Amino acid sequence: MPYEEIEYEVADGIATITLNRPDHMNAYTFTMRNEMLDAFDRIDADDAVRAVVVTGAGRAFCAGADLSTGGGTFDREQSKEMFAGDDLLEDGTPRDGGGTVALRVARCLKPVIGAFNGAAVGVGVTMTLPMDVRLASEKAKFGFVFARRGIVTEAASSWFLPRIVGISQAMEWAATGRVFTADEALAGRLVSRVLPPDELLPAAYALAREIADNTSAVSVAAIRRLMWSGLSAPSPWDAHIADSRLMAALGGAGDAAEGVTSFLEKRPAEFPLKVTEDLPPEVPDWPVR
Amino acid sequence: MPYEEIEYEVADGIATITLNRPDHMNAYTFTMRNEMLDAFDRIDADDAVRAVVVTGAGRAFCAGADLSTGGGTFDREQSKEMFAGDDLLEDGTPRDGGGTVALRVARCLKPVIGAFNGAAVGVGVTMTLPMDVRLASEKAKFGFVFARRGIVTEAASSWFLPRIVGISQAMEWAATGRVFTADEALAGRLVSRVLPPDELLPAAYALAREIADNTSAVSVAAIRRLMWSGLSAPSPWDAHIADSRLMAALGGAGDAAEGVTSFLEKRPAEFPLKVTEDLPPEVPDWPVR
Amino acid sequence: MPYEEIEYEVADGIATITLNRPDHMNAYTFTMRNEMLDAFDRIDADDAVRAVVVTGAGRAFCAGADLSTGGGTFDREQSKEMFAGDDLLEDGTPRDGGGTVALRVARCLKPVIGAFNGAAVGVGVTMTLPMDVRLASEKAKFGFVFARRGIVTEAASSWFLPRIVGISQAMEWAATGRVFTADEALAGRLVSRVLPPDELLPAAYALAREIADNTSAVSVAAIRRLMWSGLSAPSPWDAHIADSRLMAALGGAGDAAEGVTSFLEKRPAEFPLKVTEDLPPEVPDWPVR
Repeated sequence: MPYEEIEYEVADGIATITLNRPDHMNAYTFTMRNEMLDAFDRIDADDAVRAVVVTGAGRAFCAGADLSTGGGTFDREQSKEMFAGDDLLEDGTPRDGGGTVALRVARCLKPVIGAFNGAAVGVGVTMTLPMDVRLASEKAKFGFVFARRGIVTEAASSWFLPRIVGISQAMEWAATGRVFTADEALAGRLVSRVLPPDELLPAAYALAREIADNTSAVSVAAIRRLMWSGLSAPSPWDAHIADSRLMAALGGAGDAAEGVTSFLEKRPAEFPLKVTEDLPPEVPDWPVR
Repeated sequence: MPYEEIEYEVADGIATITLNRPDHMNAYTFTMRNEMLDAFDRIDADDAVRAVVVTGAGRAFCAGADLSTGGGTFDREQSKEMFAGDDLLEDGTPRDGGGTVALRVARCLKPVIGAFNGAAVGVGVTMTLPMDVRLASEKAKFGFVFARRGIVTEAASSWFLPRIVGISQAMEWAATGRVFTADEALAGRLVSRVLPPDELLPAAYALAREIADNTSAVSVAAIRRLMWSGLSAPSPWDAHIADSRLMAALGGAGDAAEGVTSFLEKRPAEFPLKVTEDLPPEVPDWPVR
Repeated sequence: MPYEEIEYEVADGIATITLNRPDHMNAYTFTMRNEMLDAFDRIDADDAVRAVVVTGAGRAFCAGADLSTGGGTFDREQSKEMFAGDDLLEDGTPRDGGGTVALRVARCLKPVIGAFNGAAVGVGVTMTLPMDVRLASEKAKFGFVFARRGIVTEAASSWFLPRIVGISQAMEWAATGRVFTADEALAGRLVSRVLPPDELLPAAYALAREIADNTSAVSVAAIRRLMWSGLSAPSPWDAHIADSRLMAALGGAGDAAEGVTSFLEKRPAEFPLKVTEDLPPEVPDWPVR
């Protein structure tokens, strides 16, 4: 399946999704949303993919929702596709489209690294909050501009953002709607590092490489779900129960034997298990609604 | 309604609450509590108020509970007013008074900025934790001194503080009960900035101004509730549902049309909606107990 | 009861637990687990203990699980003791052993300070996450290496770690499994301070001293439970109810009277209450599962 508004490639264990409407600052559309959902399904189904890098073509990362519909852009009557098309809540309310991307990223079985080459505004940044690590070029800018457009923070960002940067920083950015620099994003912990433009992708790939070269794919998938859905676990006792089940399921399996043996033998591990076949049913998940 | 222990004024879209017992280091009393509750009700009911600044008159911000009752200050038999007067839990337990202020602030429909001109100790700091942003003068000091007084962290600070500064920093401050500097508060992320004394209020007003001049009041109110009550949302799916309902409610309304149109026309927005009349019922809230 | 793999002493109000298998880098065993559980029971039962310091003998803090069973180390059939022996979940699943330590630490009635003299890897670091403060020697190293061993992050670390360092930092460390320096731990907020090796224990004891010398033991115990179990409280209203009950229970008791009176008289407080006898039933706890 060729994509129109994103590029997708897999090389050396790493998938790259490139938002690819450079003439439109990679503005988010319904097509882009559908293609991203499809790409994440491919990622989970492909054992050759151990980690994911998401970046933008051209000058921007993603300038936010495509506003070519003008004042009706966010009107459910005029812009069904800015929501999630025919994907509705049980009560018939149109689903927020950006949220369907964010929630898909949150459940991905591979770690996801956002590489911000330029401006990431509105849904262009909120849909990246469930990525594991965000790295920024010195040229990146960010903005939770929703209050300046008369709408609300979306893509479940009211859940993710305060858990990533703290409620005070989240409220300052969301209440002012200001566009801010990569340095402000770093100080506020929205991104982990700020890099010269030509070092951005190498840094993202180096991190992906570190994961791909050293770890069990099944362990990483299980850990990603444990951690992210663990943000919803009512108490550490819930986490303890999930841990116990996973340790019982995986502790006697091939990757654990190889992991310990290779460590004792001071050689690289060759993990036999595959995410597509060997992920135990004990791996937790959010109750999808 | 004139106040005795606070000052309240509104100018240019910004309300200022000044704790006003300078001869008593603005120590917290039942009167001050009642006046603050009243002021926040006025703030929510007044569309002319777009943001709130809270500060202290004189040398201190708030030295904590007024201890003029001596050893019986926190005794429910002797000091009904240090609790919440006749406002009791369902089982007849007196409500913690500072908590009634904190919870009122948490639900405010306008962003609240704390401007710490001097010492903020005990309830003087805990009641400010649900404010969105805290700015400190270099002369400010802070202390979660409850363990040194034989009582406990109150005003729901066991909920707010670890979510703002992390559980390790929260426990270090609460277990030692130490009084600490503005710089330590900044390093621990209790405050966002430390400023020379004469730059404190200008910085607070500049931030309030940035909100008032650029954003939709209804968007900001909805976002504030989404974010703060979202800290209680079990999972991002809950946030997604809340987002979807709000985007459906507001995306076709006047502020969204004006927000997008003014942006495309590169002119300041003039948002038509009012918080008192147009806030949609889909705006979430905590279950009040 | 003499211990084999830890040392335990109490002096001047401070208990010290020293992981004590220096010839094995203090690697974690079933014996060490049982002895730690016992030590924490003694700590809670001993009013002479006001704070706890945990450190390691020799070069390491704790090198993680003892791998002398080789590839079968984490296999529930071969290594019942790497789990929790006969301590099973209701459905018969073996409990993760490190988790039983972490959860015991989380409920301790005294503040716990981790003093990392050297490497803390795997369970060697995860079991310390419910400690209140972590201080590191410049020689300390850390690693959430589970994905390199084919297993998962355990000891309820999927619950604790993202709440301490944020989900992005937690995922970066857990997905790469990298071993990292004390400085990286500090930048990521896993530890509060990095110190020259010979200043580590003095700093830990100074912090313990600050607690022991200035605060009510009952207040600190109640606050520790409020804060930690408050991480699980659904909303600030739950915290408000817990606060109200504790303020009603303790506000009229001896420590509150002494706390206020001694403050007004500008003299050190002598708090009469004891944790073993006077801790009110209103002190909250997690639902233990």
